[in-house]
Parts: sequence; C-alpha cells; structure tokens
Amino acid sequence: MAYDAIETPFGKTDWIVGGAATYAAYAASNFIKPVNQVSIVGYDFAKEEMDELKKRGVNLEGVEVVKDKKSFFWSGRYHLDMNTRDTLVTDLNVLTDFNPVIPDSYQGSEFLMLGNVLPSLQISVVQQLKTRPKLIAMDTMNFWMDNALDDLKRLLTMVDVLLVNDSEARQLSGQFSLVKAAKEIQKMGPKYLVIKKGEHGALLFHKDQVFFAPALPLEEVFDPTGAGDTFAGGFIGHLAQTRDVSFENMKTAIIVGSAMASFCVEKFGPIRLKEITKADIDGRIRQFVDLVNFDIELI
Amino acid sequence: MAYDAIETPFGKTDWIVGGAATYAAYAASNFIKPVNQVSIVGYDFAKEEMDELKKRGVNLEGVEVVKDKKSFFWSGRYHLDMNTRDTLVTDLNVLTDFNPVIPDSYQGSEFLMLGNVLPSLQISVVQQLKTRPKLIAMDTMNFWMDNALDDLKRLLTMVDVLLVNDSEARQLSGQFSLVKAAKEIQKMGPKYLVIKKGEHGALLFHKDQVFFAPALPLEEVFDPTGAGDTFAGGFIGHLAQTRDVSFENMKTAIIVGSAMASFCVEKFGPIRLKEITKADIDGRIRQFVDLVNFDIELI
Repeated sequence: MAYDAIETPFGKTDWIVGGAATYAAYAASNFIKPVNQVSIVGYDFAKEEMDELKKRGVNLEGVEVVKDKKSFFWSGRYHLDMNTRDTLVTDLNVLTDFNPVIPDSYQGSEFLMLGNVLPSLQISVVQQLKTRPKLIAMDTMNFWMDNALDDLKRLLTMVDVLLVNDSEARQLSGQFSLVKAAKEIQKMGPKYLVIKKGEHGALLFHKDQVFFAPALPLEEVFDPTGAGDTFAGGFIGHLAQTRDVSFENMKTAIIVGSAMASFCVEKFGPIRLKEITKADIDGRIRQFVDLVNFDIELI
Repeated sequence: MAYDAIETPFGKTDWIVGGAATYAAYAASNFIKPVNQVSIVGYDFAKEEMDELKKRGVNLEGVEVVKDKKSFFWSGRYHLDMNTRDTLVTDLNVLTDFNPVIPDSYQGSEFLMLGNVLPSLQISVVQQLKTRPKLIAMDTMNFWMDNALDDLKRLLTMVDVLLVNDSEARQLSGQFSLVKAAKEIQKMGPKYLVIKKGEHGALLFHKDQVFFAPALPLEEVFDPTGAGDTFAGGFIGHLAQTRDVSFENMKTAIIVGSAMASFCVEKFGPIRLKEITKADIDGRIRQFVDLVNFDIELI
C-alpha cells in the first residue's frame, strides 16, 4: 500500500493511492469478503482510504501503521506506447521496516496471494500460516531474480501459481520461447503459471495445457499503473469465491482478472475500481466472451 | 511468386521458393479449388514448384513467365525475437515488368485476395474483373503508404477487407490506439479490417464489433517468412469454401488463417505447408478452440 505520482500522455497526478496490495484488495473485494490484507503504511496514509477499504470488506488488522515514517512512494512516467515507463522516484520509506506479522484472525485463510516484495518476506508469510492454504499464488519481479534468486527459488517450491510478465518468465527460465519458459518454471515448483503480456493478454500454463485470455482492445489506456495487481486481485478473488482450483476454473479466473484490469486502466490509480458495480463487471466479462467466441464446424 | 534467402537464429537457406502469392495459394488450396493465381516469375522458377501447385488445384494461367529475367528475389535475416528482421537484398527482377492480365477463364471469380504489390496494379486487377467479386480482400504495406498513398486510398474505396499489421494500421490511420485506428480505416472504405499482430494474434473489426484470435503459443518459431500471406490464404480460402461473408463466418476464417500460419512458421519457407493433411489442419483448429474456450457463469 503506497502513494504514487504518475505521468501518462493523457495527464499527470502528483499524489494518488497505489501499491500492489491496494489494487489487489479493491479488485478481490468484489468477489470475496473478508480480504485479509497484510501490508505496511506510514502516518501519511489517508484515513478515508482505510475506511473505504474497510467498507468493502478489507480486513486491515494485518496492516502495520508506522507513526514516524511516510508510506512507500513511487513516481513514474509512461511512454507514448504505454508499455514502457521510466521510474523517476522510489522512496522505500516504511518498506525498509516491513516484517509482516500474520494476525491470529487470519489463520485458516484458504487463498493466499503473495504480492511482489522481498522473497524472504513472502516466505515468512507462508511459514506463519499454521494450515497450508488451499492455494498459494505469488507475484515477483526481475529485481528479485537479480538480487535474491536463492530465496525466490525456495519460495517457488512452496507455491501453486506464479504470476509474472513475459520478460520476467524469460529471465527466470533462461528460455525465450514462452512455451519452453513455462515448462522450465513448472519444474521449479508452481504447477500453474500465468504469463501476463499487458495489452497482448495473458497465458495460463499447466502441464501440457495452455489457455489464452486476450486483453480487451480499448480506445484509450489512460493509466496502466496497477493493472497487473488488479488482475491478480480479480484472479484470486474469483478462485476464493468459487473455492474451485481446477484448471477449468482458473481459466475463468484469468478472464475475471483481465476484466478487472481493463477497468483499472481507464482512470488514474484505483479510481475506476472504486466506481464500478457488479453489473459493470458482468457486462465487461460478457465483452470478453464476445471477443473470443467463435463457432467452428470442421468440414 | 519469388525466391528467398532466409537466415533465422535456427538456420539458414540460400534459395527457397517464396512470395506472397505462393504462400497464399498453398494455404487456400486446402479449402477451395481452383485457386486462380495471378503473378509473374522468371526463367529460374522451378518447374517442380509449378507442378506441385497445379497438383493442388492452383490454376497458373494468370502467371506470366518471363524468359530472359530472374524471379523476384528477397533475402533477410531475423533477429532473436523473430518479430523483427533486416532485409539484406531485394532484387525486383521480373517485378519491374509486372502488369497483371486477368485470363478470361478467371472471369466470374467470387473471392479476390489482392496481395501486397503497387496499389495501381491491385486497382488494375479489380478493374479487369467484369463482375464485381462477392468479396475483395487486400494486403498492403507501409512502403505504399509512404510512396503511393493516393492510389492506395483509391483502392481502399473498392475493397471489403483490409489485412494489415498493427504498425501499418497505425501509420495509415494516424492513430496509436488500434480501436481508434480501426474506426478511421473503416471510414476509408473497407467494412472489415484485420489487424495482424504476429505472435500476439489478430483482431477483426467491423462497425462496433471486435473479435480477437490468438496466435498459437509455439515452442519454436523456426521461420516467420510467409506467415502473414499464409494467414491471408487460409482466411480467403475458408470464406470461398463456405461462400459466407458474415462477420460470424469471418471470425472462423481468422481462426483458419491463424491455424495455417502456425504451420507455416514451423519450417523454412512453405515446406511445412506442403506436408500437412486435412487431419493436421482440423487438429490444429481444435487446438485453437481449446486455447480460448472457457465456461463462465455470471453469479
């Protein structure tokens, strides 16, 4: 949970709530309550935002508030193609002290999504849970592949689903072909692999099966910040709601995640995620059905 | 119809049959016979290749053979990502004399695919057909947008379907968003627009409708040469076979085109296209169904 300053070709904001856990919670809370949040914020994190999250069924007991430090802050500028961005500022602030403690009330959580932080912290969260969740999914990034690969590899043996983008999948596996990368990564632990390709959609791999979900072609991507985290929130939210971790249901979870991400990019930060209704989400999912649905008769 | 020399990260060939019309004919002949081919070749074009095409139902009456010149020759080298390539040699040879003449026996053709050549030649082909075909589709490239835009714009008013890649759609429309680009291009004439995104699949636009077909995730793309032309051949071949030019059937045609293209890239040039059977094609189309098919129940 953090604050961001974002510049895109369409506008600029100097101070907007952000952070992977914020986006994921806003997305997941449409499908499952409570969302047991684990994070750290500073004295500057707005009470209104906390209240908004609570109202949506996000349990904040596991969110540490540090009285004398600021929240994590990130500032970036997107290029015209919206696929690439320059980081202008990264102020770790409270994140340097992050040592997640799982509240007793969170014990028994069945679906765990590990956001992108230091792999040793992700491991600590898994180890604090007395009963192994039904499903553990995780995000990570290239930075940890460069700087904490041993911990990352250890963590990979503990999880069911890895969500990464295409360049991260290539780096982790040493394979350029995503099909080959998926095979290598499954050998490292996760039985399910989601490779996110931004505007080009997402792939789900499991054994020899593969599923592809497109991104919705949009007139305008206003701000891509948080789209991947929103995707992850929708994905785990759908799985937790249905309590079904089959490959078939994971396909649906990918579509739900893609639908949530397609809302996220329409306005700055998580603004759009706070506006949408159940009807909006259902309508968007129907658009995905129309987008890929075809009848074929083999003659 | 041409010869190519191709270098990819996986291998090298100094002399292999190529050319948009060759790929398109090999692909389309799986679905419709005859394929009435219009092209020009030199004295060096192999009799065996002509015989192979004829055997598959490709009518070569409209292929001019020039006795004292060589066939068009192209040589290129692909980069590691296979999405980009450097052209090493372009020898126009017979192409400088190309002035397509439609044989009488071709009159009444119902489905016309205009390969990527000088727009004035594409216009000439349309004008030579006494009965307007049921469907006219066309390919083009950025070079003609830079050098023959007036003719290209005139041609666009005469066709039903334009097939281009994403960067060409952006250049032609002046819009970065493909959704906006599709709107602009439909105003120029073609009621249907296919935007090919290589390994990221293809989009079909018509009015406010959009359909997305993924590319099959492959372990290895051996040689992408001709994939777009093979896609076009499969697309028009399916439409000609079914004689149904509805949006719904065009979706299927896009899947058929994608399936054919996924074979093309498995070996050098059109080699793989000559090997595959009806059963191979049906099996590949089933893979596309599995790739995107999901069940969703809106709860």
